[in-house]
Amino acid sequence: MINCSKERLQDKIQTFSQFGDTGNGGITRLCFTEPELQARAEFKRRCEALGMEVKTDDVANMYATLKGTEDLPAIAMGSHLDSVIKGGNYDGVLGVLTGLEVAETIVKEGIKTRHPITVIAWTNEEGSRFGPAMMCSGIITGKFDEATMMASKDKEGVTFKEALEASGYKGNQSNRFKADDYKAFFELHIEQGPVLEAEGKEVAVLGGVVGMVNYEFITRGQANHAGTIPMPMRKDALYAMTAVIQYLHDELDKLDSKLVYTTGEFSGAPNVHTVIPDYVRITLDSRHQDPEVIKQVVDVIHAVPKEMHGCPVTYREQWARNTVHFDPALVNLAEETVKELGYSYKVMYAGAGHDAQFIADIVPSAMLFVPSDTGYSHCEKEHTPVEQCWKGCNVLLNTVLALDKK
Amino acid sequence: MINCSKERLQDKIQTFSQFGDTGNGGITRLCFTEPELQARAEFKRRCEALGMEVKTDDVANMYATLKGTEDLPAIAMGSHLDSVIKGGNYDGVLGVLTGLEVAETIVKEGIKTRHPITVIAWTNEEGSRFGPAMMCSGIITGKFDEATMMASKDKEGVTFKEALEASGYKGNQSNRFKADDYKAFFELHIEQGPVLEAEGKEVAVLGGVVGMVNYEFITRGQANHAGTIPMPMRKDALYAMTAVIQYLHDELDKLDSKLVYTTGEFSGAPNVHTVIPDYVRITLDSRHQDPEVIKQVVDVIHAVPKEMHGCPVTYREQWARNTVHFDPALVNLAEETVKELGYSYKVMYAGAGHDAQFIADIVPSAMLFVPSDTGYSHCEKEHTPVEQCWKGCNVLLNTVLALDKK
Repeated sequence: MINCSKERLQDKIQTFSQFGDTGNGGITRLCFTEPELQARAEFKRRCEALGMEVKTDDVANMYATLKGTEDLPAIAMGSHLDSVIKGGNYDGVLGVLTGLEVAETIVKEGIKTRHPITVIAWTNEEGSRFGPAMMCSGIITGKFDEATMMASKDKEGVTFKEALEASGYKGNQSNRFKADDYKAFFELHIEQGPVLEAEGKEVAVLGGVVGMVNYEFITRGQANHAGTIPMPMRKDALYAMTAVIQYLHDELDKLDSKLVYTTGEFSGAPNVHTVIPDYVRITLDSRHQDPEVIKQVVDVIHAVPKEMHGCPVTYREQWARNTVHFDPALVNLAEETVKELGYSYKVMYAGAGHDAQFIADIVPSAMLFVPSDTGYSHCEKEHTPVEQCWKGCNVLLNTVLALDKK
Repeated sequence: MINCSKERLQDKIQTFSQFGDTGNGGITRLCFTEPELQARAEFKRRCEALGMEVKTDDVANMYATLKGTEDLPAIAMGSHLDSVIKGGNYDGVLGVLTGLEVAETIVKEGIKTRHPITVIAWTNEEGSRFGPAMMCSGIITGKFDEATMMASKDKEGVTFKEALEASGYKGNQSNRFKADDYKAFFELHIEQGPVLEAEGKEVAVLGGVVGMVNYEFITRGQANHAGTIPMPMRKDALYAMTAVIQYLHDELDKLDSKLVYTTGEFSGAPNVHTVIPDYVRITLDSRHQDPEVIKQVVDVIHAVPKEMHGCPVTYREQWARNTVHFDPALVNLAEETVKELGYSYKVMYAGAGHDAQFIADIVPSAMLFVPSDTGYSHCEKEHTPVEQCWKGCNVLLNTVLALDKK
């Protein structure tokens, strides 16, 4: 067993926390914005300084490769550099920086690997600027229609395609991640939940990623002056949506206790204090490991009353993902490595989506989690002590080196 | 009794409906935007063509005056040219256009009035771009702090002061509407409610404007990843606000049946489908003629639970207005005029706020309503048949001429 450098890892985390710094302990680093381009440039600079060759594919996924001693497929690690609005300094970027630290350790320690070692930064994982999430691992694995993705717009009406072409990181389609070129893909990530901390575990080896569905709900009322319409004659889309949200909570809370669901996005019109709302839209995100429970969620959605407080209610599935199971041999190898390192651990399923769940379709994949303080994520309070990041990185390093011998 | 011209009035309504045309039967004509400046220019052009002198004061209120034969204070009429987002072609502008038609009838019929006749367009009545509503009648009557108003910002961060100075309509403070210069102010407006139509009345003479309070409510949760936090550990600000809205409906519905209340404005953060909402804000607008009922509303607000679903709930009064009673002599004169014209009418109180309620503080004032089809207002469906507009205009004309003789 060999260890990577805690000091170097700390420096990487510190450096990247500046790109999109909100001033409140977090970052806003949306896909192809200036802070995200700064993070890409720093990643490229550091990889090239280690003698790695950096390529980008046609959707700006970045691949930094250290040559191996034999003509073999590469062992890859990575995650993403973008964040949600007012996100933290660990979600995504830690998977890139631990990959980089693994490569740096290999170089600095003079280790010769048989397989090439590749560190990957996937484009637009969060989907916070251009929906959906995990867009570019999804494009290259055929999960999403490419033309639809190119037309995806941000809130200012800029398309993904326009931002991609302006980014300077659009490369050749021939550079895309392909099954024949890679032996394995590993993604280290923060847990983004409270389980590891609550159970006092240092690391998690993931068996897979839970399935999910995402729906939108729309209520339509009648805009009218706030002061002149008697209450019984009103059609208030916001009051109607209030009833929809309460209905969802009442019914979904009857299902399995491990089910999670979130109404995270909401908007409406005309959104003026003196006017009755006539249009409200929300999203419902719902996740569970068991497809049977997800089916029950969809049954609840189908049973939502078609009218609430006189306003029509409509819904539409936006996307869905089945539960993904990672490669048993890689999961086993990672578990053996954690045991040898003597860290406490558990095997669990991820609640959040990750690029690795798409990559798992074409190349054997696995994931590692490190704990999140208080379970906070997708917020500025997101934090993992460097000691924990370093231990996760050591698991990643030694799993990669063990696989390199096979 | 003399009548104004239905054709000319129709032409005015038609012409002004082009400024900010949404293409769906309505307009978006926010204060000092291009469409609103076009409406101002057209108003000025038409007034000057009638030989009226047009002045603006330091907050861009516009005053177009036809000379009288004697050195007497003016009789004024008017309303506003701005609209809400996706508003209609009658709210506000009809009060300016009927004033203009009264002046045009006086000119075209060769009538000599003893008093000067002034048509006024008040700036930023809706408050849809720069809050609050009725800003500039409020400034000149001392209802609002001028420095605070100047700093009021639109959603892009532009201040009212900046937009005012760029408008080209900022004039001298000495041109402001003053008590000594005016004998009376009349405002004709659409009802913006269903009462006149339901009761088959052609016109309303207003006894006053009901009082109101406007509060904001804020819930604060904890942003976190949608997939990883067990439901019992969540603090969801949107779910908390849902409970606040339901509480308000449950409690306010127990009060007098003529009470109206509206949660019209709503926003939140981070507003991403994969993140639990941590901040939601709504406004509550509530109106009733009886101050005792408004007091009961405030009691309900004070009793809203301080925490909902684990999220702190806070509230704050944004503004309040007492019930305003119009000048009894003018109300009586208008009522006599309607009777002589033979139109069906009722005396009622306005539910919406109007510039006349501020002006009533310094000069005797009164208002007229014409019916709104289906009660629709503050929306693109807002409509009043020209026949009804014309009858209201005839009441305005003959009331002004009757007052001129006194």
